[in-house]
Amino acid sequence: MSRACKPGKVYIVGAGPGDPELITVKGLRLVREADVILYDRLIPREILREAKPSAKLVFVGKAPGKHVYTQDEINKMLVEEACKGKIVVRLKGGDPYVFGRGEEECMYVLEHGVPCEVVPGITSAIAGPAYAGIPVTHRGTASSFAIVTGREALEKNKRMVYYGAIARAVDTLVIVMGVTNLENIVREILDAGVDPETPVAIVEKATMPEQRVVIGKLADIVEKARKAGVKPPAVIVVGEVVRLRDKLWKLA
Amino acid sequence: MSRACKPGKVYIVGAGPGDPELITVKGLRLVREADVILYDRLIPREILREAKPSAKLVFVGKAPGKHVYTQDEINKMLVEEACKGKIVVRLKGGDPYVFGRGEEECMYVLEHGVPCEVVPGITSAIAGPAYAGIPVTHRGTASSFAIVTGREALEKNKRMVYYGAIARAVDTLVIVMGVTNLENIVREILDAGVDPETPVAIVEKATMPEQRVVIGKLADIVEKARKAGVKPPAVIVVGEVVRLRDKLWKLA
Repeated sequence: MSRACKPGKVYIVGAGPGDPELITVKGLRLVREADVILYDRLIPREILREAKPSAKLVFVGKAPGKHVYTQDEINKMLVEEACKGKIVVRLKGGDPYVFGRGEEECMYVLEHGVPCEVVPGITSAIAGPAYAGIPVTHRGTASSFAIVTGREALEKNKRMVYYGAIARAVDTLVIVMGVTNLENIVREILDAGVDPETPVAIVEKATMPEQRVVIGKLADIVEKARKAGVKPPAVIVVGEVVRLRDKLWKLA
Repeated sequence: MSRACKPGKVYIVGAGPGDPELITVKGLRLVREADVILYDRLIPREILREAKPSAKLVFVGKAPGKHVYTQDEINKMLVEEACKGKIVVRLKGGDPYVFGRGEEECMYVLEHGVPCEVVPGITSAIAGPAYAGIPVTHRGTASSFAIVTGREALEKNKRMVYYGAIARAVDTLVIVMGVTNLENIVREILDAGVDPETPVAIVEKATMPEQRVVIGKLADIVEKARKAGVKPPAVIVVGEVVRLRDKLWKLA
């Protein structure tokens, strides 16, 4: 920490999956108290409107294919603003620790002598299925679930996620950021010997007013998703729990 | 639905892991609007105090070894109260769909012709580790995690969770309700060939003021937990992400 730094504090806050009311009470309080807010794409407008009129709002989101700021620039901005004695909120979609890079940002901030706290958010990996009438667990039939990123299929040199092995090991598999790799992911799961009749749901724009759900099975979901023109952001659920939707999904 | 039923609505609401500020804005709004609240054990007092003075608050929690109401009685109460035209909130710890039986209750309510909506909550399975400085994912080293119940080890006739296979398939394994079965669970994971040096954290009373963390590895966590006298509720995390705590856990 340089002598010029009189640190305020950085809060890495999960804004939830899209429904503006799914932010936590703590997250909303911090948005209201913040002097500076660095926010991502897909953060609900309603939440940003809660900021103080004097608050500085900076969009640091990544649009597909182009970044306004690099991760390094974002890290530096967090420290610089906090070093002016400011309360800085880094507002992220979902939960900062579920494929949100919250740990990278918090580590950088702490290493520079600035206090940092992570505030959990509702993850679309669980709330997305819920808003589509699908529980990730079900007593007696689904006692385990896994949440994985669908982006791994792109990184060929350093493979980390073996979709087939995970799908075999747990009752429910939830894949986030997997729509563009759907075909590869489904092929791997089938190659691992999982029943092609296993039901699959894709929840597009989960918890948002535009939410759309495509239901199929491993054998036909790729074709169904293509026909429906499914686009990111979307959550994919593989497992018998998808069948519960028929009993749980009713317009309230 | 009987002719005598003029249904209001049932909301199955996740109250979050214990920190009263980790309920969602939507959950808190519904607590404030509710005519009747059926609440579990471990629901923070601060949340219940937000109810209307006229609201009827019913404790339906399960203390270890004794139940005030059976699940069937709770289901019936939800329908009966809603049939009086009331707004009924069923307040549960964590998330209703993460080992919360929310699906059972919602299905029963819908089958009786009463509208029902599930409101997600922050799960202790993710927020518990976070409050202990442990992210469940980490870019480049943890691209998948599983959440399982530790209660399965008790049900011998119908085995559903194979801890060893799941621990091998994912980068991070989170076990909820597993403290009383810790010894069996750890033995199964080791028997499956997982490295005994794999770090383990137990987060007791996660996100609450009394939160306590015990750190070890598969080889010694059972002994360490015994010495520390760890008791439920607690969340167990197995995986390399536990090491990140040294860099992320600082008093803010």
